[in-house]
Amino acid sequence: MGLVLADDLLGRGLQRIQREVDAAFDAILPVPDDARAPLIEAMRYAIIGGGKRVRPLLLVTVAEMYGASRQSAIRAACAIEAIHAYSLIHDDLPCMDDDDKRHGKPTLHKAFDEAIAVLAGDSLHALAFELLTSREVSPDPFIRSELVATLAIASGHNGMAGGQMMDMVADQVDFDLHSVTRLQQLKTGALLAAAVEMGAILGKVPEEARGHLRNYARDIGLAFQIADDLLDCEGDEEKAGKALRKDEDQGKATFVSLMGPEKAREQARALSEQAIGHLVMHGKEADILRGLAKFIVERDM
Amino acid sequence: MGLVLADDLLGRGLQRIQREVDAAFDAILPVPDDARAPLIEAMRYAIIGGGKRVRPLLLVTVAEMYGASRQSAIRAACAIEAIHAYSLIHDDLPCMDDDDKRHGKPTLHKAFDEAIAVLAGDSLHALAFELLTSREVSPDPFIRSELVATLAIASGHNGMAGGQMMDMVADQVDFDLHSVTRLQQLKTGALLAAAVEMGAILGKVPEEARGHLRNYARDIGLAFQIADDLLDCEGDEEKAGKALRKDEDQGKATFVSLMGPEKAREQARALSEQAIGHLVMHGKEADILRGLAKFIVERDM
Repeated sequence: MGLVLADDLLGRGLQRIQREVDAAFDAILPVPDDARAPLIEAMRYAIIGGGKRVRPLLLVTVAEMYGASRQSAIRAACAIEAIHAYSLIHDDLPCMDDDDKRHGKPTLHKAFDEAIAVLAGDSLHALAFELLTSREVSPDPFIRSELVATLAIASGHNGMAGGQMMDMVADQVDFDLHSVTRLQQLKTGALLAAAVEMGAILGKVPEEARGHLRNYARDIGLAFQIADDLLDCEGDEEKAGKALRKDEDQGKATFVSLMGPEKAREQARALSEQAIGHLVMHGKEADILRGLAKFIVERDM
Repeated sequence: MGLVLADDLLGRGLQRIQREVDAAFDAILPVPDDARAPLIEAMRYAIIGGGKRVRPLLLVTVAEMYGASRQSAIRAACAIEAIHAYSLIHDDLPCMDDDDKRHGKPTLHKAFDEAIAVLAGDSLHALAFELLTSREVSPDPFIRSELVATLAIASGHNGMAGGQMMDMVADQVDFDLHSVTRLQQLKTGALLAAAVEMGAILGKVPEEARGHLRNYARDIGLAFQIADDLLDCEGDEEKAGKALRKDEDQGKATFVSLMGPEKAREQARALSEQAIGHLVMHGKEADILRGLAKFIVERDM
């Protein structure tokens, strides 16, 4: 993905986790010698080699900060990335956002077909929960069950899917800043928060520290989305690897349309600083989280 | 649904479970006072008041036979029914089977729209796993984790979704009886088997009895699909509540096209008898399972 980052620690962290997540899915999804082959090829196309892997990095970093093994954290990280990948596949469908490009290559329904795209999304969705019930994630069934609960709630109608529903009516309804914030907390924020929470569950993080991590997650979630709106408005399609300028074309209320680009950028940076402030009880081991909070608002992809 | 069944015990059992599953989803899915309302209304449209509830009945009957509480079994039954409902919503989409009618009313994408149908399916999918992690299902997290694993595997690329993929190429590939059997074991059989297995997990059924119940599930799964093929070929659209004669129109290999209707009916009945044979170690408490094995091959809907 050729990330060029000022923050070398974060850059190395993202590259390492990209390799590990890719290797895990390569092993998890062998192409079978039967009529299911196109489905598994489609799942591999969508999940291997694409995406920044922000959610896996969040999950693994928090889990490792509190002593969980990297191997078990990577497994759980694959689950949340499978949910993220399925949501992109379905969001890109002609009946949804109708996008042709994702991660710099044709969207899944363009590379395969719509029916396979629906089905590959559904299969990655189920795979996410299958992965979380493996002993490799944790020998403790309570932890496995809590991880499933956290991911299911964050991705369903009270989380990501609910936010997507709000987004679908955002061009018809007069959304104010409060509504847009709520929309984005569900659509993007819920899954980013789940990544941090799942890391905390795996690391058995004590309640006080967990509260700080939740605040960090909430702030970077919002900063992430404001940056996304700015990117949609000002970004380079080549670097972003997807079509931009869609919100404006559709007349959707966004942070940028409601606040203006200057104010939005200021707000994103303030949230990023505030997120870093929630890590005050952590030392160098949280430097990746600090780097990520900065990267999220400065990224061009 | 006005089921008229020779077997009163089964009829009462199905009606009771229909009421209980409907009531549970009515409580689980209140319509929120925000822009997510159409999504939750769509979920309710798809999951409340439709369907025979065969999978819930299987799960609850097996669980109760071995002493699990009805309340916890109903909760788990709602999870498997949510998976079943999501799969019907996505299968009915224009890019999949393109069906206009389901359970005697317009399919979800006809009653709402395609985007909401994709999203309502996804939301029911996530809800299924959320439901299974509730303490109401079981206070034992190991049981909750096993239920999630069973349902996730049965519904993903090595189960139902894999079978659907095989079905999508069934009109292009020369399928023999072995391939059609494999296809149906995944597409329909896996979830029916999961219903029995989840009941067995809740009831902590000992290994030997679980083996017999698995054989029962395998046989009724296959009998169910042969009967479905016969129904598609010979049934009444009004009673079935959906369009029929689709397999033949699409030139798909089915049990009926490969064996002929006479032989197929014989085979379905033989499997039904065989399924009942696997219940020999059970007494009257398994009468609903016996009735279901008979109903499955004689149903006209």
